[in-house]
Amino acid sequence: MNLIILTDNDLIGENEYRLEDNRAEHILNILKLSSGDEIEIGILNGPAGIARIESIDNNHIVVKPTNLKPLPKIAPEKTLICALPRPQTVKKVLLTSAMMGIKDIHFIRANRVEKSYYHSPLLEPENMIPYLLEGLSQGKHTQLPTVTIHKRFKPFFEDYFPTISDEKTMKLLPDIETDRFLNNLYSGGNNPIAIAIGPEGGWVPFETDLMLELDFKPFKLSRSILRVEHALTATLAQIELIYNN
Amino acid sequence: MNLIILTDNDLIGENEYRLEDNRAEHILNILKLSSGDEIEIGILNGPAGIARIESIDNNHIVVKPTNLKPLPKIAPEKTLICALPRPQTVKKVLLTSAMMGIKDIHFIRANRVEKSYYHSPLLEPENMIPYLLEGLSQGKHTQLPTVTIHKRFKPFFEDYFPTISDEKTMKLLPDIETDRFLNNLYSGGNNPIAIAIGPEGGWVPFETDLMLELDFKPFKLSRSILRVEHALTATLAQIELIYNN
Repeated sequence: MNLIILTDNDLIGENEYRLEDNRAEHILNILKLSSGDEIEIGILNGPAGIARIESIDNNHIVVKPTNLKPLPKIAPEKTLICALPRPQTVKKVLLTSAMMGIKDIHFIRANRVEKSYYHSPLLEPENMIPYLLEGLSQGKHTQLPTVTIHKRFKPFFEDYFPTISDEKTMKLLPDIETDRFLNNLYSGGNNPIAIAIGPEGGWVPFETDLMLELDFKPFKLSRSILRVEHALTATLAQIELIYNN
Repeated sequence: MNLIILTDNDLIGENEYRLEDNRAEHILNILKLSSGDEIEIGILNGPAGIARIESIDNNHIVVKPTNLKPLPKIAPEKTLICALPRPQTVKKVLLTSAMMGIKDIHFIRANRVEKSYYHSPLLEPENMIPYLLEGLSQGKHTQLPTVTIHKRFKPFFEDYFPTISDEKTMKLLPDIETDRFLNNLYSGGNNPIAIAIGPEGGWVPFETDLMLELDFKPFKLSRSILRVEHALTATLAQIELIYNN
C-alpha cells in the first residue's frame, strides 16, 4: 500500500476517518506506526496528502488528513474494452487498470468468452471494488475506474461505443499478426485512447473486422503471445513511454 | 497453451513423445483433438514445429513431431536481476520471464527481502520448472531461462555480476524518482541488457549507490508505482517497443 485510500464510508466526523480493515492492518503490522505518526493518504476520487494518526484502539485507527492537494491528471484518458475473462483474470485486470490509470473499464462479450463467466459473483460492484482500491493504493492514484458489464458484442460496438468515443479517440487493437509496432501509429498527445484486449484464444474474424471498420488500429504489442493481464500492462507501459517521449 | 512444450522426459522412442499431464488435458479437453490431428509443439531448448497425434489411450497421448525449425532468437539477450520476492510473486516472475524471453534470472538478496523467502520450497529447481514451462508455452518460446539464487547482495554485484556482463551490457534500473524515460538512454540494438527489479518497498540507498557505481542507468518506467511482476512486464514491453523502432 503506497497510498492509504480513504472513502466516505470511513468518515466519522469532520475530516476524521476511521480505518479497521486491511488498511489498519497495514499501518499496524507492516508500517508499525503509532499515534502521532503520519501516513500518505488519498481521498477516493479526490485529492491526496498526509494524515496524522489520532488514535489507535483495538485495530481501529482514526486519522485526520492535512495538506490535501489534487493529484495530477493521468493523461491521456484511457478506456479499456476487455473481452470478459475468467474471474481470476478479472481480478488482475481490475487491479492493473486502477494501478496504471485506466479511467473506464468495459467488459464485453465475444465469441470466445465463456457464457458462465457472466454468472460470477465477482462481477457484483461491491465485489470488484476491493481490487480497484488495491490498484489505486499500489499505483498511488485516487480516481476509481468505472466498470460496466456488456452482454453483447455487436450492440456494444455499434450502439454504445460511439457514445463514449469520437473521431479524436485513438483506438488500439493489439494483434500478434501485424508487424506494425505502436510507435508507428501513436505519437503521444492528450487525445483519449481506447484499448481493446481480446479473450484467451483471440477475437474471431467477424469481431476483428467490425473493430477495424470502427477505425481500431492493429499493432504488434510483442513477439511473445501474452495473457490478458500482461497484454494490458504491456500496452499501458508502451503508451506511457511514447506519451512521455 | 499456445505451444505444447515437449521435453526429453516425454521421449518414449525415436522422435516419439508421450504426454500425460496438463498438456494431455489441454489437448483433450480444451482443444478437443483426436488421433490424426496436429498440434503446435516446441522441443524444450530446441526447435518448434507441428506434431501429429498418433494415439490417445486413457489420457496418455503419443505425438510425433515433424517440420521442426529453429525459432528466431529473442534479441536482445536479457538478464533479470530480481530481489527475491514472496513465493506467490516468484511464480509470476518465472512465468513472465519465460513468456517474454528472459534468458537468465538471478534472484538476489536485498535489505528489504525477507529472509524467510529463502526457505520456500518453491525455490527447488523442480518446483520452479512448471512455471517456466507454462511461460514458454504461453509466449511460444522454447528456451528455458536459467534461474540462480544468490544469498548475498554485495558479493553478487561485486564478484558475480562482472562475470556475466561486460561494458557492452546495457544495465537498467527502473526508478520512480528519476524523470528520464527509457528511450532517453536505450536506443535499441543487439547488445545484452540486464534489468534490476527491486523488492517491495524499493532498494535502500546503499544498494542503489552500488548499482549506480556499476553503471546501472535509472529510468522512469511509469508514473504509477508498479508491483514487481508488473514492473517486469512493463520494462520488457518498453524494451521491445524501442528495439523494434
